[in-house]
Amino acid sequence: MSRRRNIRQTGPLEASDVTSQLYRVLARANQIASTTELDDLLREMLDLIITVCGASTGTMYLLDEETNELVFQVVRGNKTDLALIGQRISADKGIVGQTIQKKEAIVVEDLANDPRWYGPVGDGEGQLRNAITFPLLLRGEPIGAVQTFNFTQTPLQLIQLLGNRMASEYEKAALLHKSEQHSQRLQALISLIARISTTLDRDQILSLIIDQARGLLNAEASSLFLLDEESNHLILHLTKDVHETSLPPLRIPADTGIIGHVVNTGEAVSVRDARKDKRHYDGIDEISGVQTKSLLAVPLRVPTVVLGRQRGTTEARIIGGVEAINKTDGSFDDNDIQLLSTLAEQAATVLHIAHLYTDADELFLNTITALVTAIDAKDPYTEGHSQRVSDYSVAMAEELNLSPEIRHQIRVGALLHDIGKIGVSDAILAKPDHLTTAEYAEMKKHPAIGARIIKQVRRLQDVLPALSQHHERMDGKGYPQGVQGEEISAIARIVAVSDVFDALTSKRPYRAAMNIETALEILRIEAGDHLDDRYVDACISAYSKGKIQPQMRTISPLHPQPKPGQ
Amino acid sequence: MSRRRNIRQTGPLEASDVTSQLYRVLARANQIASTTELDDLLREMLDLIITVCGASTGTMYLLDEETNELVFQVVRGNKTDLALIGQRISADKGIVGQTIQKKEAIVVEDLANDPRWYGPVGDGEGQLRNAITFPLLLRGEPIGAVQTFNFTQTPLQLIQLLGNRMASEYEKAALLHKSEQHSQRLQALISLIARISTTLDRDQILSLIIDQARGLLNAEASSLFLLDEESNHLILHLTKDVHETSLPPLRIPADTGIIGHVVNTGEAVSVRDARKDKRHYDGIDEISGVQTKSLLAVPLRVPTVVLGRQRGTTEARIIGGVEAINKTDGSFDDNDIQLLSTLAEQAATVLHIAHLYTDADELFLNTITALVTAIDAKDPYTEGHSQRVSDYSVAMAEELNLSPEIRHQIRVGALLHDIGKIGVSDAILAKPDHLTTAEYAEMKKHPAIGARIIKQVRRLQDVLPALSQHHERMDGKGYPQGVQGEEISAIARIVAVSDVFDALTSKRPYRAAMNIETALEILRIEAGDHLDDRYVDACISAYSKGKIQPQMRTISPLHPQPKPGQ
Repeated sequence: MSRRRNIRQTGPLEASDVTSQLYRVLARANQIASTTELDDLLREMLDLIITVCGASTGTMYLLDEETNELVFQVVRGNKTDLALIGQRISADKGIVGQTIQKKEAIVVEDLANDPRWYGPVGDGEGQLRNAITFPLLLRGEPIGAVQTFNFTQTPLQLIQLLGNRMASEYEKAALLHKSEQHSQRLQALISLIARISTTLDRDQILSLIIDQARGLLNAEASSLFLLDEESNHLILHLTKDVHETSLPPLRIPADTGIIGHVVNTGEAVSVRDARKDKRHYDGIDEISGVQTKSLLAVPLRVPTVVLGRQRGTTEARIIGGVEAINKTDGSFDDNDIQLLSTLAEQAATVLHIAHLYTDADELFLNTITALVTAIDAKDPYTEGHSQRVSDYSVAMAEELNLSPEIRHQIRVGALLHDIGKIGVSDAILAKPDHLTTAEYAEMKKHPAIGARIIKQVRRLQDVLPALSQHHERMDGKGYPQGVQGEEISAIARIVAVSDVFDALTSKRPYRAAMNIETALEILRIEAGDHLDDRYVDACISAYSKGKIQPQMRTISPLHPQPKPGQ
Repeated sequence: MSRRRNIRQTGPLEASDVTSQLYRVLARANQIASTTELDDLLREMLDLIITVCGASTGTMYLLDEETNELVFQVVRGNKTDLALIGQRISADKGIVGQTIQKKEAIVVEDLANDPRWYGPVGDGEGQLRNAITFPLLLRGEPIGAVQTFNFTQTPLQLIQLLGNRMASEYEKAALLHKSEQHSQRLQALISLIARISTTLDRDQILSLIIDQARGLLNAEASSLFLLDEESNHLILHLTKDVHETSLPPLRIPADTGIIGHVVNTGEAVSVRDARKDKRHYDGIDEISGVQTKSLLAVPLRVPTVVLGRQRGTTEARIIGGVEAINKTDGSFDDNDIQLLSTLAEQAATVLHIAHLYTDADELFLNTITALVTAIDAKDPYTEGHSQRVSDYSVAMAEELNLSPEIRHQIRVGALLHDIGKIGVSDAILAKPDHLTTAEYAEMKKHPAIGARIIKQVRRLQDVLPALSQHHERMDGKGYPQGVQGEEISAIARIVAVSDVFDALTSKRPYRAAMNIETALEILRIEAGDHLDDRYVDACISAYSKGKIQPQMRTISPLHPQPKPGQ
């Protein structure tokens, strides 16, 4: 009330008595309209209309053009009346239907005896005696209607004016709401894209997409299918449930279900009720435990990716699809299709790039593994040696809780530690007898040769000590430089322990392989003077936990490493 | 006029004569308000106010709260009057200033003699005799004012009602416009992010960011600086000009200019006039040829990137900054800061991932190059051989216009073609005399050994024939399998030509290196029976264009390859 008084005080607004009531109503309408909160606006406008009619109660309906139904948008009255909100009636019948069709107001003095009235009229205080019903017109066309009950006045021209204003305000507030909501969802999409882009870990990317797509689209669940080209199956990845347990991956033939259609055709598909769509595959509902009603499915389409001038491009292709299931507010619309398609395309790109990186990384590791294995194989007694030293060193690094970055360096350094043997005559390498002093001097060159070969590679500088220092000793009596203690790089001290351990547990021309307990005992003896006792402890501890299984690489020395990043 | 009649016909709107004029005006206001086009709405509303005042002309002003100025938003009248649009007057003085401060209408009967009127009054038909001035009130506060001249009526209450409605409609239309514009810019940002994400080529990414940031922010120019940590300089990359020529990269010390501040502190900086900011470095204007006025600079911040479970993460850091220079419509606002920051962060992530990929790719190439070089070096006569064969083969592939993808395969296959020599005794490899039959038989095993080593590597399957078939002959008389013609993989036929060419142009224990003309002559003779004549032609053609320079790798056989993708 104080705000209304304020409006009246804004100027020397002289007016005749006849129109002063009218101005008060219109000023109030202006005041109501100065909110952008749609619900407040509609409710207060309806109240104003009820007031000017001297009515007791009223309803505002909005026309759903798609279904030609009127939706109870605002209802003023008791609890029973409020329960009507959201309900729908046909726009073809009754008084409200007629007001919509004729685009004019209808005044009914005796509701109970009007054949067009098909609702209850009630009794007592809540009885509906009469009604004014009029359309809400926007640019001359109805977008809804208002009905007031138990009126005492019929200011039809005024309420039509207010009703049309309500229509126009409704349109603007709805447009603004839609636009702001759209911006918010685009912002959310951008944040999500930023998050997805900061990982090259495939499983993490998949989890992020599945978990976030659901929120972005207000869906009950979401799932992702990746095409396995070898078996021509789609592999299903689901939203993790609240207990963070994830189901094992499941697979369906690639031509199955709506998702199969999407992956085959590259078209997005949105259905209001999947159960009525003959392409829908019920089996998925059984697996996921979610009964699919509305469904939106889009392809995971990797665009052409430019690798660089010397590397060319990779081809565009579809690698799977993403589904959002059961929109919680209505059914999926064009904005949803656009959002999910954009997310899916970006996700597919990131997945592809993660794959390219992992591939390049795997290619490097597998190639050096193949090469060092071939070099080791020149001496049957060292077959598989470098791979085992690498495995043992990584197991020790895990035992020491070293970071994955350092573990990777240790893996690479240990694999390459004996690469200098390329430069040692194979007569010496494979000599079954003990070496002569001259031969031993030649053999002792391999750390320096290895470092000389690899120091050309800028990105391997950190692992060089694994090559150059793995025959140094803690007491300084090692080779080639005779450095001691902490002067020896940690990576070299770790590799030295694995190197000795593998030598002891391998067969030699002049002795059988030692049993592990004996080998570990010798390591303990060597700790301090020869080997770093911390790393000897790490080796013993890793062995006791089953992380080190000596000679496991002997049978199949060319067995590829597990894929990094998987 | 027909639309107005339409409104009057919408219902049995009975009203007294006194109010019927009023209803007509209000219905017209509703009609005007049913547009979301802001300019139309304001102009038509002003016209309606002019009409009800019986005035000849009028102006609508909007209040700029930041500067406390009134901006001529809509002007009705002659050409001179229209020129006022966009001009600004103080909101503290004159009649309009007073109406804003008092929040009430002011009626001036004799404008020429009013001390508050400081404008011209003109003469003849355009003379301004009197004026009604009133504030546009939104929730009781002024957001502007309307002034009508040469009125014949003073319906103050009605025009205040219309004015306040105008204020409310202005606010809504402005909010909607801003929200829609924001959505459009977010959409543009998303498209840009999608485009940036599909390339791992650093230069292409940089060009995209620089070119597109300008459009996204309505800026006259944009530039990007990358931090060179070694020299602690910022390297400048500029918008390409319309002729598509790009300036050479320029560098400034990392603590220079506003961009230096941004890179050091990680904070975004927006200035209205860079010339007044003491951090601004004039030198950049000279280099770019753009005189900087408004400027927005944000850091290129790489977030922590997850490489995978076995590879860990890379650390977050700032790698440079992006600038947008001279906003074409006003100065940079919070939305601009947010858009450019988001773009910069995503761009930094993509640049970083492109770098990681290039690094992994380079690591692979450099490591196999180092290893094959070491293997070649076991025989002084074959030092640098594999690298040269790789260079020649790539030159031939270029000559044949093969795709970058295929060229890369050829580069890798040729580098590895003799890797099987690991399995051949070095006494045989380095034997200065001719080999015995048994030794030659041993030597001939290297293609099969090489293939056996590399076939373990899944991603090198396509290059295997370069290893296993490079000693096959077109006539089937080669080894190890004696396959012929098209049965020999193209990659092997290309490598065979390079291999023979390098052997001919290299010194041998039993002869000097041949001169190139002689070697090419022998290739011509070998074409057909031994070598594929198409590839012999390609070799000769590549040589004639200077793409093949025999023995260029001899001096520094460990020289790293140029970085791929750069």
